[in-house]
Amino acid sequence: MNANLQAFMKKHLSPIDSQLQIQIEQIQAPKQLKEAMLYSVIAGGKRVRPLFLLAVLDFFEKQHEDAYTLGSAIEMIHTYSLIHDDLPSMDNDDFRRGQLTNHKVFGEALAILAGDALLTYSFGIVARLNNVPSDTKIDLINQLSQASGAEGMVGGQVLDMESERKRISVPELETIHENKTGALLAYSILAGAMLANAEESELKALEKYAFHIGLAFQIQDDILDIEGSSEVLGKTAGKDEASFKNTYPALLSLEGAKEKREWHYNEAISSLRLIKEEIGMLDELAAFIVKRNN
Amino acid sequence: MNANLQAFMKKHLSPIDSQLQIQIEQIQAPKQLKEAMLYSVIAGGKRVRPLFLLAVLDFFEKQHEDAYTLGSAIEMIHTYSLIHDDLPSMDNDDFRRGQLTNHKVFGEALAILAGDALLTYSFGIVARLNNVPSDTKIDLINQLSQASGAEGMVGGQVLDMESERKRISVPELETIHENKTGALLAYSILAGAMLANAEESELKALEKYAFHIGLAFQIQDDILDIEGSSEVLGKTAGKDEASFKNTYPALLSLEGAKEKREWHYNEAISSLRLIKEEIGMLDELAAFIVKRNN
Repeated sequence: MNANLQAFMKKHLSPIDSQLQIQIEQIQAPKQLKEAMLYSVIAGGKRVRPLFLLAVLDFFEKQHEDAYTLGSAIEMIHTYSLIHDDLPSMDNDDFRRGQLTNHKVFGEALAILAGDALLTYSFGIVARLNNVPSDTKIDLINQLSQASGAEGMVGGQVLDMESERKRISVPELETIHENKTGALLAYSILAGAMLANAEESELKALEKYAFHIGLAFQIQDDILDIEGSSEVLGKTAGKDEASFKNTYPALLSLEGAKEKREWHYNEAISSLRLIKEEIGMLDELAAFIVKRNN
Repeated sequence: MNANLQAFMKKHLSPIDSQLQIQIEQIQAPKQLKEAMLYSVIAGGKRVRPLFLLAVLDFFEKQHEDAYTLGSAIEMIHTYSLIHDDLPSMDNDDFRRGQLTNHKVFGEALAILAGDALLTYSFGIVARLNNVPSDTKIDLINQLSQASGAEGMVGGQVLDMESERKRISVPELETIHENKTGALLAYSILAGAMLANAEESELKALEKYAFHIGLAFQIQDDILDIEGSSEVLGKTAGKDEASFKNTYPALLSLEGAKEKREWHYNEAISSLRLIKEEIGMLDELAAFIVKRNN
């Protein structure tokens, strides 16, 4: 990993984690529910979404007192979506990030409710931000609802379920990922830009960057499912292939998927160069995501 | 039913239903997801929460252009909670209001996602209200998050689950219901008061009214489970007793529960008399709730 990015992460990861913990600990709620919420929130993860929000502020050479708090709200929504996705009636996963999934520890009912509570709470967090004008908070909440709901993340999950056991086209696959993972990632970038009071033209460029990075991120996920398991298992068949899942390598071949990943990465970077020559952390974070191995 | 209340309902129920339908139809989302959301939202129900919001406006002799829209957002949150409560890992109910529950029609995965989407969407609806200042919308969203999340409805559901198969005290039972059903009901009343620009002292009195009506509502639910027939209720009667559930009749006897219901009703009404002699619809709606047979 690039040294600048390493320093950036070292600086921000621990305040992000603290903020998540503080936010949940201050809730007045049944102990068991808070435990279930906290379990998945502190289960690790790359904190990609809060990091993108912070990298956008960095890009505009700004800081914002509410950046960690807003980042934690987004991370809670991401976490709720993982808890619900892992449920037996959905992906039925027993492990996530090397740990038992929420419902394996707390039972299905509490896992569903912990997800519901994280989702609900995150809107309250945005509403209570101390250093953001009400008009901006309303914008942030409206966009968060769209990015994470039926028109975004939840809709993408439904499209993904519908695509199971049938072959779809690359544009259809893009629509799934643009919604399922892209919408909330793009929101993180937009949220950073809103905290930085970015102008309309800058927002447009960042939107394009977010679109391409979101897809590059997903393609890399698909590639890792093949190459990651090759390394560990000594065979090429990962879970995606075994379940006949629609992935970029399945639709484009492994080489084709890698080319597509590079193309999206380059598109993302060039859209930012329209605003500013020195991209800094937004380039390094993008490169990290494209080259990560987990 | 009282003739005034009948006229009040006749006036408002159909706009509430239309608003719910319009709000969901305009979502840009996969068809199946919208169908699952709409199925439970238009499955009937008494629309108690939007009606309380409207009755509060009536109490202050006010009208508000966003009343139906805000009422529909609250009703969506109520509906999502029913969809998730009915799931096999929760109450495992096959019927609700005489119809198959959401997961029996659409499957568990889609039912979970339809609930998630309704919850998420409702915050967007509040953020987009046209005729409410941003500061008030932020208040409405913050309070909605608290009333419906870990500190309110979701927390109450967890407490309810924890109380299963053990005998609890009446104060413990009250805490469960104050959160599980009371918090969102109280929010509806508060939301009406906020749209009416009520003063602090009026809010206090309405809070007390909401607290008592919420409990009276729940006690009546428990009583109906014993006295009502499955046909009228649209759900299986006698289920509480068969599952050794903690209910007011179980803790206080049927007669004791009825006395408690009357007491809460009277307390609710007297708290309002402190503001105004002529209570109107808030009295009639309260009386209806206490005397309803489904």
